[in-house]
Amino acid sequence: MKHLLSTQDLSARNALRLLNVAEEMAAVGQREIKKLPALRGRTVVNLFFEDSTRTRISFEAAAKRLSADVINFAAKGSSVSKGESLKDTAQTLEAMSADAVVIRHPASGAPARLAASGWIDAAVVNAGDGTHEHPTQALLDAFTLRRHWAKLDGTPSAGTTLAGMKVLIVGDVLHSRVARSNVWLLTTLGAEVLLAGPPTLLPVGVGAWPCTVYYNLDDALAQRPDAVMMLRLQAERMNAAFFPSTREYSRRWGFDDGRLALLDTMGLDDTVIMHPGPMNRGLEISSAAADSPRSTVLAQVRNGVSVRMAALYLLLSGDSQDDPQDDQPENQADQPDQLATTPEGRTP
Amino acid sequence: MKHLLSTQDLSARNALRLLNVAEEMAAVGQREIKKLPALRGRTVVNLFFEDSTRTRISFEAAAKRLSADVINFAAKGSSVSKGESLKDTAQTLEAMSADAVVIRHPASGAPARLAASGWIDAAVVNAGDGTHEHPTQALLDAFTLRRHWAKLDGTPSAGTTLAGMKVLIVGDVLHSRVARSNVWLLTTLGAEVLLAGPPTLLPVGVGAWPCTVYYNLDDALAQRPDAVMMLRLQAERMNAAFFPSTREYSRRWGFDDGRLALLDTMGLDDTVIMHPGPMNRGLEISSAAADSPRSTVLAQVRNGVSVRMAALYLLLSGDSQDDPQDDQPENQADQPDQLATTPEGRTP
Amino acid sequence: MKHLLSTQDLSARNALRLLNVAEEMAAVGQREIKKLPALRGRTVVNLFFEDSTRTRISFEAAAKRLSADVINFAAKGSSVSKGESLKDTAQTLEAMSADAVVIRHPASGAPARLAASGWIDAAVVNAGDGTHEHPTQALLDAFTLRRHWAKLDGTPSAGTTLAGMKVLIVGDVLHSRVARSNVWLLTTLGAEVLLAGPPTLLPVGVGAWPCTVYYNLDDALAQRPDAVMMLRLQAERMNAAFFPSTREYSRRWGFDDGRLALLDTMGLDDTVIMHPGPMNRGLEISSAAADSPRSTVLAQVRNGVSVRMAALYLLLSGDSQDDPQDDQPENQADQPDQLATTPEGRTP
Repeated sequence: MKHLLSTQDLSARNALRLLNVAEEMAAVGQREIKKLPALRGRTVVNLFFEDSTRTRISFEAAAKRLSADVINFAAKGSSVSKGESLKDTAQTLEAMSADAVVIRHPASGAPARLAASGWIDAAVVNAGDGTHEHPTQALLDAFTLRRHWAKLDGTPSAGTTLAGMKVLIVGDVLHSRVARSNVWLLTTLGAEVLLAGPPTLLPVGVGAWPCTVYYNLDDALAQRPDAVMMLRLQAERMNAAFFPSTREYSRRWGFDDGRLALLDTMGLDDTVIMHPGPMNRGLEISSAAADSPRSTVLAQVRNGVSVRMAALYLLLSGDSQDDPQDDQPENQADQPDQLATTPEGRTP
Repeated sequence: MKHLLSTQDLSARNALRLLNVAEEMAAVGQREIKKLPALRGRTVVNLFFEDSTRTRISFEAAAKRLSADVINFAAKGSSVSKGESLKDTAQTLEAMSADAVVIRHPASGAPARLAASGWIDAAVVNAGDGTHEHPTQALLDAFTLRRHWAKLDGTPSAGTTLAGMKVLIVGDVLHSRVARSNVWLLTTLGAEVLLAGPPTLLPVGVGAWPCTVYYNLDDALAQRPDAVMMLRLQAERMNAAFFPSTREYSRRWGFDDGRLALLDTMGLDDTVIMHPGPMNRGLEISSAAADSPRSTVLAQVRNGVSVRMAALYLLLSGDSQDDPQDDQPENQADQPDQLATTPEGRTP
Repeated sequence: MKHLLSTQDLSARNALRLLNVAEEMAAVGQREIKKLPALRGRTVVNLFFEDSTRTRISFEAAAKRLSADVINFAAKGSSVSKGESLKDTAQTLEAMSADAVVIRHPASGAPARLAASGWIDAAVVNAGDGTHEHPTQALLDAFTLRRHWAKLDGTPSAGTTLAGMKVLIVGDVLHSRVARSNVWLLTTLGAEVLLAGPPTLLPVGVGAWPCTVYYNLDDALAQRPDAVMMLRLQAERMNAAFFPSTREYSRRWGFDDGRLALLDTMGLDDTVIMHPGPMNRGLEISSAAADSPRSTVLAQVRNGVSVRMAALYLLLSGDSQDDPQDDQPENQADQPDQLATTPEGRTP
């Protein structure tokens, strides 16, 4: 892997490799030694053309835990607001020796354009582009689901897929890059994906997606999903033509207390509830659901750091290895553990 | 100590312990080796719901000097502005493995709520909450006063109290968390506290505080204080009903050149003038006073870094020690000096 | 050198020393080991009273590559916006043990005032003040030109000057601190400087500068310059009285495709085109020119990090050396290379 741009283009092999490395990274976090020297001397630039504190600090924490230097570049108040092109901004970062550029951009395709442009040598990580993709979010969701799935089987997570799992994604699919990235990745990993949302909030081409679509949440829940992923309602993008009110939306599409109770009634003891955050409590998800034992919301955040560590590690550590060939990447990728034997972050 | 939320709840023993450790930290800063490895691999998040560059960079410098990673989280433009609750923000930081959360919040009690909530395991440090408290400011003031007091006696600072010292706090006590934190801490440390301010800028319950209250600055100065702490006039919170003009305020409540001369006339050669900054020069303090040899303004800023290093060190280093019992904390706390023997920050 | 405030006051000896050290720093960046431990434990504060993401991250990258801690202080939302004076801000940073203050300020002379004030001991680096100077920009330009000049001669850059080189600076000289810093530095280094711009965008006293002035770009190009430095048109400072339109400006003063072709026609095969960025493509420079092999735009950005590393290194490393005498600085300055022998930033 040279870049991480989308899950649609991510092979099952690379996706599993990344999730396996993330398992190793998560294990590091639980030890006394929290910091790995793997990316010492490397520079990761967070290039954010949209505000997103959660995603930015997750990448920042991941990079710092690998001992990289992090430079935050918010487009506001920068040359960008003086009319500088993406090309010039990118080349500037390249010239400053950025090793990775983590980019959040309002335009779908901006990260891919950056990666394909030849403007930079740095690895490009898509941290959300328009309504296109948000691959690390999908990877952390898949990581969370895989742990859950493996636990039910009593097997280790590493190496397993999501084969046989049924995941229901609910809400504003139209505007959600999280939904898109999850549809592709979960399918690639063997899961069955169901979508539910109001027709006005589903994309025109959804019929061509590898999913079953439901226009009624309760019909979809009747399919007995193993996981229900609630999307954030991006109310700022809505208008009255779409739906009468947030109250109406919550009643029809929110995971409320009634639906939480329904899972019990249906005997779906192992079904988890997911949300990428930040949550609109009381709108697309009730507080009882968000805080219930079924909720994976915090695990998702926690796993986000591990998944982003894995992504940065795989993208950046390759070229300093003895064997940089693309066709033998597993040898280096599956053994980050050995890095941890160099004690860093130990309090003497 | 698990958290640092207020000085009202801080025992004399813990306050002295913290001040003693701060003395060690100050000593480190004066050596060639400026950086301690104590908190390597730990993450300190500055969670600021109000702008405060001075306090933020003081904590940032303190954390970095202890080799911690620092992540700045300004609420503006973040999920918080999208309506995320304090609970969800806090849990997000927790899930990202924040070891300490330094929180500045406009609502009194927010840090205590965070600490008591069970939402996070991280240590919570109150960096100013509403009109409630600003404990590290009071600790740095006490540190500054203790050094002054010990110097007059020709004794070392470490271990001594403020017994016998008379401290006058002047101005807008009503809106000042600095004043509140100082009243409790200075009293705990044995000092006598006097307050002076216009009746409209004193809180209703001030009669119950362990202080004498004066409604005339010159009457208060006649009590021959050892230190005069001028509060910042937060003019933006004022309205015409409180007082006729800033000029009138300055004349009646400012530490102006006349009052500076008065200290000499009265033979108060050792009385110091304090201010938490940022100063309104010419309003609550004249430039001559702010820049006079009596002024401790810069010492306060300098000591702020040492005190915050001590706070972070005591809150975070405990669990990696051999003996984490709360009842024997001095063994570890009083000997940070030994950490400095591991050379860090040395220029080879 | 104690501070870096202007190029007008920079001796040829100090300028060359800085450029020579920058050559060493550039060499470090090309090795596997990207990070030097030289400034470990030192704190560099970026004190920016104006937004300038490019300059700020260049200094940040430079400081981090030398292992310094970096604290970013943007004036917006800080005490400064509450009315704090430059003096109090500076003293606050000093009290927090800042070792260097990199200052960008809208008022010409602010950095010099800071350095001369006695308010701080920290080294002051001018990162752009009003319409006065931007010395590190000129140094990176000179560094870029020197490499070009030496390459033509087939000699090493280090140690050589710009003697015999002819540099044409074009555009809005009036508002440009970049132009001013370049005029002084390039002249000091032995280059001949030509200026071209509309009379309304040339300063009143330009006749006293050590330059030839042209009021027609093509007349100036006829002088066969070795380098053409296009200035950014700061359109926000313009008004209709200065010139009829940006289109008119571009036609008369832009380095457009026609002028790019002209260089070939004239046989000026070795003439380079410079721009400090961010560029207004299609206004003062055409895209073809900006992206042509003659363009040094990206080299300038890259060299900016090396030059700023050199500046911070020379200003900060002196006092930890055995021989801090000002009259023998070359011994330490010319050998930063040896620092690189301590492996830092190595990926194990």
